[in-house]
Order: sequence, then C-alpha cells, then structure tokens
Amino acid sequence: MSKGLPKRSEDYSLWYNELVKRADLAENSPVRGCMVIKPYGYAIWEKMQQELDRMFKETGHSNAYFPLFIPKSYLSKEAAHVEGFAKECAVVTHYRLKNDENGGGIIVDPEAKLEEELIVRPTSETVIWSTYKNWIQSYRDLPLLINQWANVVRWEMRTRLFLRTAEFLWQEGHTAHASKTEAVEETVRMLDVYAEFAETFMALPVIKGVKTENERFAGAEDTYCIEALMQDGKALQAGTSHFLGQNFAKAFDVKFQSKEGGLEYVWGTSWGVSTRLMGALIMAHSDDNGLVLPPNLAPNKVVVVPIYRSDEEKEQINEVTKEMISKLRKAGISVKYDDRDTHKPGWKFAEYELKGVPVRIAIGPKDLENGTVEVARRDTLEKSVIPLNEEFTTTISQLLEDMQANIYKKAHDFRAGMITKVESYEEFKSVLDKKGGFVLAHWDGTPETEEKVKDETKATIRCIPLDGEEEAGKCMVTGKPSKQRVIFARAY
Amino acid sequence: MSKGLPKRSEDYSLWYNELVKRADLAENSPVRGCMVIKPYGYAIWEKMQQELDRMFKETGHSNAYFPLFIPKSYLSKEAAHVEGFAKECAVVTHYRLKNDENGGGIIVDPEAKLEEELIVRPTSETVIWSTYKNWIQSYRDLPLLINQWANVVRWEMRTRLFLRTAEFLWQEGHTAHASKTEAVEETVRMLDVYAEFAETFMALPVIKGVKTENERFAGAEDTYCIEALMQDGKALQAGTSHFLGQNFAKAFDVKFQSKEGGLEYVWGTSWGVSTRLMGALIMAHSDDNGLVLPPNLAPNKVVVVPIYRSDEEKEQINEVTKEMISKLRKAGISVKYDDRDTHKPGWKFAEYELKGVPVRIAIGPKDLENGTVEVARRDTLEKSVIPLNEEFTTTISQLLEDMQANIYKKAHDFRAGMITKVESYEEFKSVLDKKGGFVLAHWDGTPETEEKVKDETKATIRCIPLDGEEEAGKCMVTGKPSKQRVIFARAY
Repeated sequence: MSKGLPKRSEDYSLWYNELVKRADLAENSPVRGCMVIKPYGYAIWEKMQQELDRMFKETGHSNAYFPLFIPKSYLSKEAAHVEGFAKECAVVTHYRLKNDENGGGIIVDPEAKLEEELIVRPTSETVIWSTYKNWIQSYRDLPLLINQWANVVRWEMRTRLFLRTAEFLWQEGHTAHASKTEAVEETVRMLDVYAEFAETFMALPVIKGVKTENERFAGAEDTYCIEALMQDGKALQAGTSHFLGQNFAKAFDVKFQSKEGGLEYVWGTSWGVSTRLMGALIMAHSDDNGLVLPPNLAPNKVVVVPIYRSDEEKEQINEVTKEMISKLRKAGISVKYDDRDTHKPGWKFAEYELKGVPVRIAIGPKDLENGTVEVARRDTLEKSVIPLNEEFTTTISQLLEDMQANIYKKAHDFRAGMITKVESYEEFKSVLDKKGGFVLAHWDGTPETEEKVKDETKATIRCIPLDGEEEAGKCMVTGKPSKQRVIFARAY
Repeated sequence: MSKGLPKRSEDYSLWYNELVKRADLAENSPVRGCMVIKPYGYAIWEKMQQELDRMFKETGHSNAYFPLFIPKSYLSKEAAHVEGFAKECAVVTHYRLKNDENGGGIIVDPEAKLEEELIVRPTSETVIWSTYKNWIQSYRDLPLLINQWANVVRWEMRTRLFLRTAEFLWQEGHTAHASKTEAVEETVRMLDVYAEFAETFMALPVIKGVKTENERFAGAEDTYCIEALMQDGKALQAGTSHFLGQNFAKAFDVKFQSKEGGLEYVWGTSWGVSTRLMGALIMAHSDDNGLVLPPNLAPNKVVVVPIYRSDEEKEQINEVTKEMISKLRKAGISVKYDDRDTHKPGWKFAEYELKGVPVRIAIGPKDLENGTVEVARRDTLEKSVIPLNEEFTTTISQLLEDMQANIYKKAHDFRAGMITKVESYEEFKSVLDKKGGFVLAHWDGTPETEEKVKDETKATIRCIPLDGEEEAGKCMVTGKPSKQRVIFARAY
C-alpha cells in the first residue's frame, strides 16, 4: 500500500499530496477548492479540537455561534478589512432556484434576487462586532471572551489539501476589553496557548513573533503569530492572534461606560487556528513510509495485529490480547484490534505504518509460547520483543511518552540546524536556495525593502521574533540601521 | 429580571421568544433569518452534541466533513430531492467583490461569475453520494457509517429562534449498505438512538413512527421520525431517519461488487437532528419563571450563592463552600459559584431561575451557625434546609437524578392526557380546537384526504406510530376502510 508513496527527497510536494490521500486524511471534492475531510483525518482534527477547546475554556472563554452570512455592507465598514477580504469571497445573490420554462432545467430564479448580497464569512469580525454593540454597555460587561468553531470560505485560486482550501474549518476567538493593556495581554495569552498546543500536542516547535505591517491581518493593529518549519525547509504560519485596537469598535460603534463614568470605545482581539494545522502536523513529522503521528494526537495510539494460521491459534491469541487490551484501555490508551481475516498481517503492517499509528503490537504463536509480543514504534521503526508481564501497560505508556518527546526533539533539532544568520543579501539568497529554513537577517523596517526581497527571492518576513535579542546592525539590502534581526523564509 | 416574562397561558409564542432571549440562549442576527446562538444556549447545545456524538460512535459511526457548497447540477440528479430543496436555498453566483469605478462603493465583480452556481447545502445527500461513488467498490467497503456535524441553510420566509431558521446547526448521518435489510435496520437503529437521547437526556417522551408520503423527506423511500408534544398542545418533529432505498445510489451511480460477484446499487440511509432540539427542550419543560433544564443537559447543574453582609462573613462562607463545591465536582457535578459583589442574592436567585439551573444552594450566616444550606430545586421550586454533612454530595446527586426523572414524568403525564382517540371528523375538529395534542384517528391512506384535513384544520399527520395497534376502522373523513389509527396534530 505504501509502496508507491513518492520519496520526500524526490518530490516533497507530490509526497505530501499522495500521503494525504493514501493515509485517508482528505481528498479533493467535486466542488472546486473544497476538500472532503475523511474519517481518519477528521478523527485527528477532533483530537486537536478537544485539546484546544479545553485550553480555551481553561482560560475563561465560552463558545457561541454567529451567522455564516455577512451582509456586503458590513465588510466595508472597516477599511483595511474589506481591502483584505473582498477579493476572494463567495457571494450569495439569490435565494431560490426554479424550473426553466424554456426547458433549460433548474435555473436561478431571477425574481429571487437579494436586495443586499451576502458574503459567506471569510472571518467573522464584522458580524460579531455588530452583535457586540448590543451586548456591551458597561465595563461590567467586559471582558467578553468568546470563541466560535466554524467553517469559513476564502476563494483561493490555487488550493492544496489542508494547507490552502476555499472552505476550511477553524476556530476564531473574538474578545472585547476595557483597556488596551488587557487586550494586548489577551492577544499574547492566546498566542501562548497556541504555542503550548503546538509544542505539547503536535510535537511542533514554533517561533513566536509579530508580523510586519505587510503581513498583518486586515483590520488589526498588530498580528502575533507562531511559525513552524517543515521538512523541506519552508515555513508555515500555524496560528495568529490579532490585537485589533479599537478598529472594529469604531467601525461598529461599540462603546462602553467606564468605571470612571466616561464613554469609551472597546478594545478587541481575534485569534484563530484552522485545519491548516493538519498540514503542518503531516509535513513536520512524516516520512517516506507514511504518516508519523505524535501519540498525543493519534486517534489510535496502539494497534494490535494477531498472527495465526488456524482458528485455534486465533482463539488462543484472542484470549491473551483481550486482557492486554483491556488493561491498556483502562490506562487511557486507545487501542485498535485488527483481527480481520480479509487482510494479511503484512498488509496490515504497511497500512498502519502509512497511517502513522504510534505503536504496533504483533502477537503470534511463538509469542504465545514465550509470553511475549513484538512491539514496533512508528517514529524510529524500531522493533523489539518484550514480555507480556505485569509492567507491560506501564512500558507501553512510557514508550508513548518517549515517542512524543522524541518526535518533538527530532523536529526541534532539525529546525535548530535550519536557522541561519546572514550578514549580506548575497549570503541570504545563497542560503535560501541551497539550504532553506529560517534566515535571520537585518532589515531596515520598511515595507519597500520587504517587498523587494519578496519579489526577488520569494522569501517573506515570517515574523519579528518575540524573544529575539536586540542587536544593532545594518539592513542586508539597503544598509540602513536595524535594531533586531527578523526571520525570513519561503513559506506555505 | 424574569419579572417581565409573559405568561404561557396568555401568549405562549411570545413567552417562548422572550424566554429564549432573556435566558441568553439565542437572538436574531442582523442577517435575515439567521440566529446568534449565545454562550449559554451554545453550552446546552454542546452537551447535546457530546451525548449524541458518543452514541453515534458507540453504534459504529465516524465523523467526517464534506463541502459547504453543492453544484447546482448535483441537486437535480435526484428528481424528488430537487423538488424539495430548490425553492428555499442560498445561491452563490460570484466569487469576488470590487470597488465600483463609478463610486458606488463595494460591488459584486461581474467578471467573477461562476460557470455553475453553487448552492449552500440544505442537506448533503448529493455531495456525499457523489463522493461515496469513489469510496465504494466492493461489499468489503460496506457498510459505510459516517456522520457530519455541520451548518446548513434553508431559505425560510418565516423564522423563529431555534425552531425554524435559515441557517441552523445539525448532524447528518449518511450510511451505505449492501442490502435493503441492513439499511432498514440502520434507519430504525438511529431512530432508536434519537428516541433514547430525547427520553434520557432531554427528559422528553417521544412517539416513534413513519411519515406519510406527503411528509416524507425529498428523495427517501421512508421517513421515520420521533414526535414530541409541547406544552401548548402542538407537536414538534424532533428527529428524522430516512431509508433512502437505492435512490441516491442510482442518481450518482454508486454500485458495488457483491459477495456473489454481481454488480448492485448500494442501499442508503440518512438521519439528522438539529438545533431545533433546543426549541423542543425549552418549550417542553419551561415555566413562567423561565427555563427548566433537565440536569443531564444543564451546563451547570448546581449554582451556589453566598449571602453575607461583611467581608468577614463572606470569608467564612467561602471556606465552607470551597470544600462543599470541591466534593460536588469530584462527584462529577458541575457547579458554578457566584460570589460577585456587583449583584444582590435576590437578583441572582431570579437570574438562575430564569436560566434553569437545576439546583440552587444558598448559604448565609445562619446556615454557618447551624451547619446547613438552603437547597432550591428548579423543577418544583421547592426549598429545603438540609445539613451540610457527610451525605451532602450523595443527597445532591440523588436530587439531580430525581429531578431528571420528575421532569420526564411531568412531560409524560402531560402528554398522556393530550392523546385523544376520535371517531368522527366533527369530534376531530372539536378536539383540535378545544384541547389540541395528539389526535388518534382513522385515515384512508390517501394523500388527498390528508391534504383536505390539512387545508381545513391546519393539522397534519405527524406519523403512523410504530407501536400502534392494528385496529380496523373507517376513515373519519371519507368512511373508507383503515387498518390502523394515525396521529394527527397541529405542529411546529
């Protein structure tokens, strides 16, 4: 099954596409730019959702749901926002179909034209802030800490499964605060939540930073982000958290009575991660044999494959595995038992390797005799025969923890080797072409220089790192002064 | 706060609307026909989702996600289906906005017209069966048991919060089977899951039945349903499960190689429940003081309100409640502690009554002296002072169970009194007008008679009950023979 998977070294892009399809994660749908998330892919997304949702609730947020449609006029209320989103949106103009009287089949009923067109939400700031206007009167109503799990649509011309699709699933947090300080704190808090989620669950090291003006969210004062590195040396923006200032409050006239009695505009934030994280997860860890899943996000952490030649052998194995599986499950480890007769063990081994199940346990007649099982770990592909004794569950539990840490470490070490400081534009271009990765360089702070670098090298400033040291230097392009290095990379 | 809530006996419809808004469940959005589900309402919906999702998974289903958009031509592939859904759908015709060169602001870009219009899904049979065509080749690929949690849009002209909105949230199960028997079994299995959910979690007794041809889902061979009764004597369809026969398999050419080697069309089912259940939950149990929530679906099962006059008293109470709350939470009981200084106890009492929190615990200085608390149950509004001793957690736990049973029993008793057998059309009309409820009558089985009754009385056949006794009789309208009574009612 995994035989035909292209090698990363030969065609990384093809490897990714084929892996997503063959591991049953997602596929292109008949609807242009929209994907079908298949059950196995969706199960991983559900694990992500569960953890994120828990983290949002632990930081005081509640979920709610706002309309899919946004009146056209709403988009226009925030000037930068409409510039950013008008070019790629799905527009609903009619509300009925009818039979063509001239035999042309089903057609749009011209009499059912909407007075005002509706946009399928590309993001929900406008419709949410128009609602917040009614929810916020006084400082007692603040902070308002709301999150929404939803689908959104951005009419992308070039799409790739999970990484860039016209419709995608995401969560969008929208909060309102009484002061600038509080709103900035919230923006950073949620960035930290995203970074913690990426590192702890996705085993994905990320760099926290601030976007330049060019790369900022349309309507934000500041966009914070986490940036991850993929195995091909390209960067991937894995989450963003926006400090909106009072922009949307002003656009939708959302004021509150302060403790001191004055009437002030509310301060806002918004933050989101999407099914794009699935792309990051796949690209960061997987290998030429298929998916490599960090145990913390694997729908099944363990798969058990019995090996037998007769019904009698199968029965004996079933008896032993039953107890083993029951103990593993009691310890909170999800286990799949695949005793299907329709497929051979070798086929199953390849299948679960392709699907990235962290631990594969095989048990055959010899194991029965010896009181052992064969344990294969997906990350290193190492196998070992271990006794099925009292400590077995603890051993597996420990193995899963080790794997989680090992997958993170591997990604971290890889990234460490892919961060390069450069001192000149020549060196910059050479590193980009020969090595890729994150390139730390001095920049004069102007959009013009950033634009020039992008045009000439396809690299963008991923972020101004939050934990970057102050270091006086000269812009690699213009020679003008710079206070701190920024991170450039070619990116997804 | 709840003071102004209209009485059910005076204006049931207004009572419902006001209750939904004042209890912070939902509100109308600026977008026509779409609602905003507020955090408290969404928290109840999340509880419903969790339980249903668990039940779906326990019966072997996996979640997946399919596109929001459906190409216009897909809708037309199943003849009955397009008839049912074309009249009320949101149509996407363009994919870009632009600045009007003549200064008219943001307009739809006429150059960005889609070649084929896209319909925002009103239900997903078509796009899912077009996908299943590629997923199903052999009997080994069957059964395919998939569920989707999603938003859907039906362009309703008259909308009511939760009960009928243009956009709503739901789950839709779509399964494929190798035989008719299996598909029918699945249809009934999921109907049973819905009935169990309604009765166990929503405390809502339901009648299981089959729809008449007139009321059948567009594209189904048979529609099974659960029907509930609201306090105003009107029926509400709470869930449907459709046996699709081979209709969608034929429309999308989905065939499989059978065990015997032949090529056959696949058999299908689909089933769904939606945020409409929120409407049913609210209308079935609530009273003139506000919401009454069955404990099994309450976001907070218990609220604790401290009563104090000094900081010292507050501190003393905090100490006692801290331990009490910790014990309750350990027992799996969700508790909210409301020690806000900004609101008085009386205000809080009214607020939590309005919001239907099952158990309210108040604790003041006298309670401290006596080692007691005051416990108020929301369903009966009874209060009692009970000792804060070793058995306290068990007592509360038992109380919550009793309440769940009591709320169900109340709804069940009410319904029992609202099921009326009638022998003539005159009696039928009189019962409908004077009493309402479910009316059991003989019907000749023709759509014409059903239509006539609907036109003349606004009552529809809710279902042919599955557990109805065979009983020979004569149609109340035409006098023609009938084998079984059917259930008529005016309905939401």
